[in-house]
Amino acid sequence: MPRARARAKTKARAGEAGDAKEKYREMSVAEFFAKNKELAGFANPTRALYQTVRELVENALDATDTHGILPEILVEIRERPDLATGESRASKYTVTVEDNGIGVPATEIANAFGKVLYSSKYVIRQTRGMYGLGVKAAVLYGQATTGQPVEVVSAPMGSPYVYMKKLYIDMKRNEPVILEEAQWRRRGRWHGTRVSITLQGDWSRARSRIVEYIQRTAVIAPYATITLITPDGVVYHYPRTTRKMPRPPREAKPHPHGVDVEQLKMIIMNTKAETLKDMLVMEFQSVGEKTAADFLREAGFDASMNPKKLLEKGNGKRLAALADKLRAYPRFRAPRSDYLSPIGEDLIRIGLRRMFSPEWVGAVTRSPRAYEGHPFIVEAGIAYGGAIKPRDEPLLLRYANKIPLLYEEREDVAWKVVSRINWKLYGVDFPAPLVVLVHIASTKVPYKGVGKESISEVPEIESEIRAAVQEVARGLRVYLSRKRREAEVKRRIVTIAKYIPEVARSLAILAKPPEKWSPPKPGEERPIVESLVRIVARNIEIPPVDGERSDPEQVVRSVIENVKVE
Amino acid sequence: MPRARARAKTKARAGEAGDAKEKYREMSVAEFFAKNKELAGFANPTRALYQTVRELVENALDATDTHGILPEILVEIRERPDLATGESRASKYTVTVEDNGIGVPATEIANAFGKVLYSSKYVIRQTRGMYGLGVKAAVLYGQATTGQPVEVVSAPMGSPYVYMKKLYIDMKRNEPVILEEAQWRRRGRWHGTRVSITLQGDWSRARSRIVEYIQRTAVIAPYATITLITPDGVVYHYPRTTRKMPRPPREAKPHPHGVDVEQLKMIIMNTKAETLKDMLVMEFQSVGEKTAADFLREAGFDASMNPKKLLEKGNGKRLAALADKLRAYPRFRAPRSDYLSPIGEDLIRIGLRRMFSPEWVGAVTRSPRAYEGHPFIVEAGIAYGGAIKPRDEPLLLRYANKIPLLYEEREDVAWKVVSRINWKLYGVDFPAPLVVLVHIASTKVPYKGVGKESISEVPEIESEIRAAVQEVARGLRVYLSRKRREAEVKRRIVTIAKYIPEVARSLAILAKPPEKWSPPKPGEERPIVESLVRIVARNIEIPPVDGERSDPEQVVRSVIENVKVE
Repeated sequence: MPRARARAKTKARAGEAGDAKEKYREMSVAEFFAKNKELAGFANPTRALYQTVRELVENALDATDTHGILPEILVEIRERPDLATGESRASKYTVTVEDNGIGVPATEIANAFGKVLYSSKYVIRQTRGMYGLGVKAAVLYGQATTGQPVEVVSAPMGSPYVYMKKLYIDMKRNEPVILEEAQWRRRGRWHGTRVSITLQGDWSRARSRIVEYIQRTAVIAPYATITLITPDGVVYHYPRTTRKMPRPPREAKPHPHGVDVEQLKMIIMNTKAETLKDMLVMEFQSVGEKTAADFLREAGFDASMNPKKLLEKGNGKRLAALADKLRAYPRFRAPRSDYLSPIGEDLIRIGLRRMFSPEWVGAVTRSPRAYEGHPFIVEAGIAYGGAIKPRDEPLLLRYANKIPLLYEEREDVAWKVVSRINWKLYGVDFPAPLVVLVHIASTKVPYKGVGKESISEVPEIESEIRAAVQEVARGLRVYLSRKRREAEVKRRIVTIAKYIPEVARSLAILAKPPEKWSPPKPGEERPIVESLVRIVARNIEIPPVDGERSDPEQVVRSVIENVKVE
Repeated sequence: MPRARARAKTKARAGEAGDAKEKYREMSVAEFFAKNKELAGFANPTRALYQTVRELVENALDATDTHGILPEILVEIRERPDLATGESRASKYTVTVEDNGIGVPATEIANAFGKVLYSSKYVIRQTRGMYGLGVKAAVLYGQATTGQPVEVVSAPMGSPYVYMKKLYIDMKRNEPVILEEAQWRRRGRWHGTRVSITLQGDWSRARSRIVEYIQRTAVIAPYATITLITPDGVVYHYPRTTRKMPRPPREAKPHPHGVDVEQLKMIIMNTKAETLKDMLVMEFQSVGEKTAADFLREAGFDASMNPKKLLEKGNGKRLAALADKLRAYPRFRAPRSDYLSPIGEDLIRIGLRRMFSPEWVGAVTRSPRAYEGHPFIVEAGIAYGGAIKPRDEPLLLRYANKIPLLYEEREDVAWKVVSRINWKLYGVDFPAPLVVLVHIASTKVPYKGVGKESISEVPEIESEIRAAVQEVARGLRVYLSRKRREAEVKRRIVTIAKYIPEVARSLAILAKPPEKWSPPKPGEERPIVESLVRIVARNIEIPPVDGERSDPEQVVRSVIENVKVE
């Protein structure tokens, strides 16, 4: 191969740039996210305030509905003039979020809030939190901008005590440092967690996003009671409108289609199974005895082999081959989706009705699908007309695992799909009063960044979103075309019916012998009007509205009463 | 405040969801990026192959031009049928990148390639790498998809030895595990590093992006010799076209406008200064003795105070106030930009000419600016016409710290600016053969994600990009309008000049007495043509091309010779 090198000619001019030695060092993951705040969504005081509210609310919801508890969540943002230095338009705020969830065990509080990458979210389950990062990023931002610690009060469910800790994160070591702690016997029945983070923020710029975030959370979780108290003293209160809750998600085992060499190694290291076959059945979902045996035979592995042997030196290629074959085998059952927790068509309709008072609403929960071994369910809802203001494009509400996503809309797979749908085919002409909701539930949502704002273009997810939105849109088309036909029929009824009184009057006169022709007495033409109404009503068809058929004679009669002939 | 709570009413249905206890655990940062591969740009085999090439090439460039060495880089992608299991359309590949850089010291090789967040990039300096993450993410992806270790051969500059290590990353502990190592005396003069990573990839889909990446790297670094050998056996060879190199970037101290409480704490902990004033002067850039004294007086701090006192308990608010005031003080000098390394207008023009053979090229390097204490320089280049194919919108080449950015174009601040420019004002009507290059050099590029594909909309950067592109575009407008005027003049010259021979002929005849009227002899009309040419040339104005004025008589003469009268 023609490797063009001219090393001898290249003069090292390293001296000019100073030293040719680099200084290497390790950085803790806490320091990493503290130095690169924008990666976790803390790019500036506006985003930081929004992101802090989000992370705390999402933890609060994960601590409640994920465990079957109807959520009661209080969010309070208070300005802290006592911390102000008057140096910047961004002030200091304390964000407090309180929930009625399961609480954090006393022994876990310090790490759960004071150690980056320490979390209860590292299992295969559909939760809002995924990275075990968000709240700690907020704590880091808070201490970097105000020097204030996070304060956590937790009453774990079933515990007779309430615990309080104030702590900050030692950035160099990624360890919590406790400044103050206390515990007391619980009075009353409250269980849950209250977290306060003090940070630099810009409320005037973050206000609209935070309010929108809370509203959209209320749309998707109408079974939650959420209260937001703003620094302006305004209270946004969303009481629950239903006690119906989606079934909670459950923890799952990994699916063989999602496993890579490293995960397989980990599974083999930790398994108690003594044969490869038992390991497949015990450690994976969707693998039965027979499937395991069939797979191993076809893949050329001995079913009775001790899996630990694959970890021995020299077996690297065998291990890699096993992982490859597990990913590719077509006859494992699909990933379990009954462990997922979609919102459900009813709750989507309830949420959309409550927030938008539309004239029409539709929703669909699609059947489960999977990508790379991760199950997912797409849901879509559409609200149309009523109190919705017409816009030049659909108002898109994006959700992932019941979290509203507000930023980076144009980069999201849902926007890509919704903006490319030819809405004319569904009877929608823009500007139109159209709201589209898309929800993706999965044990692994493929976010583009740890800030969790937009979702990658995974082909399987993209096509499910398209199918879901189109399915609901077809319902909208039926409604809109019926509405148009109704308007058409009404126009026709008006055209015909408006002459009925006049015709009836003439007939009432003509029906008498000529010598008695004279203006009819009041009520004299009534029987003639009635028979004309019956004739017209027999000859028109009035489409049903919301499944109910109207009485055609009533319709004609009301037109006659309300229409004046010009 | 009306806190609407109804705790007593909320029945805990936790039992239904199984346990109300969560399992908490710690995750190493290696495991984190292994589980969330998409965050670092390794979303699928196509992206992974591209990202691996990128990370290795960027390290290679950082090891050369950053230290004043003219880069010689060899990239080889080899298919590995020996590792294939025939289970997937994605095959296994070994990516090898060799450079002639400063090398990695023997003692650092294991950590530099086998420990996430261990790096030489954690200083304030303009380098391509920023997060100390990329190559390790590639190593993790490689071992997870093929079980193969990374192989590193390094000949550190000045060392008599060459070192080789094969290693993988222990994901649980985030530690390198060395499988094989060797060292030998160096023969020849090579110094540098050669890294081989074996991973699952999809060459057929990644091909165009990888080739584009290498081409665009060659555009921005025409002083580098880069060779790419593809699995198809195709060799792309870009020899350097200049030995001129941008001045290498230098390491800087932090600027007070960019400091937060945590960084200030760290600085105080590590400083040898015994007074606040000395600390400001020694540990920060752009702070002189007088400024330090003025600042401390205005901020209400005692200049002779021992800074360590601020770390004592109870001084948290003072510390936070000092950080606030440092960020806000308007009279520190701007961040040092002479430590940055822009490409320079010449190299941009050379690069664009080489790659696009345009008819016009322009470039500008703007003056340094700063955002949040980070200095940055924006450069822009435009190539127009020639071999460039017309397109419906500008072809945008984005660069940050000399890295080409290919994905997520629509999310990038540069796209936002370039797509909103009204190009008609600059004489460009689409479709047009227009290439726009934008380069941002900074000690901290505000990427949107660790995959380094798009840049956030920092207002200061946005307005600099706009100013830079408009500045070059004004040059283009001058060129295009001159071109149009030239064409106009030419048309006029043609209109007049094409009749000169005929007129000259007639005059040659008429000039003689009537009895001598006869066809002129060859050459007889020449003096007449010449005086006509002089008359015409005196009365037209020919705009200068590329600063050079043409001789109008020459122009008219050439028109006469080349134009036939129909």
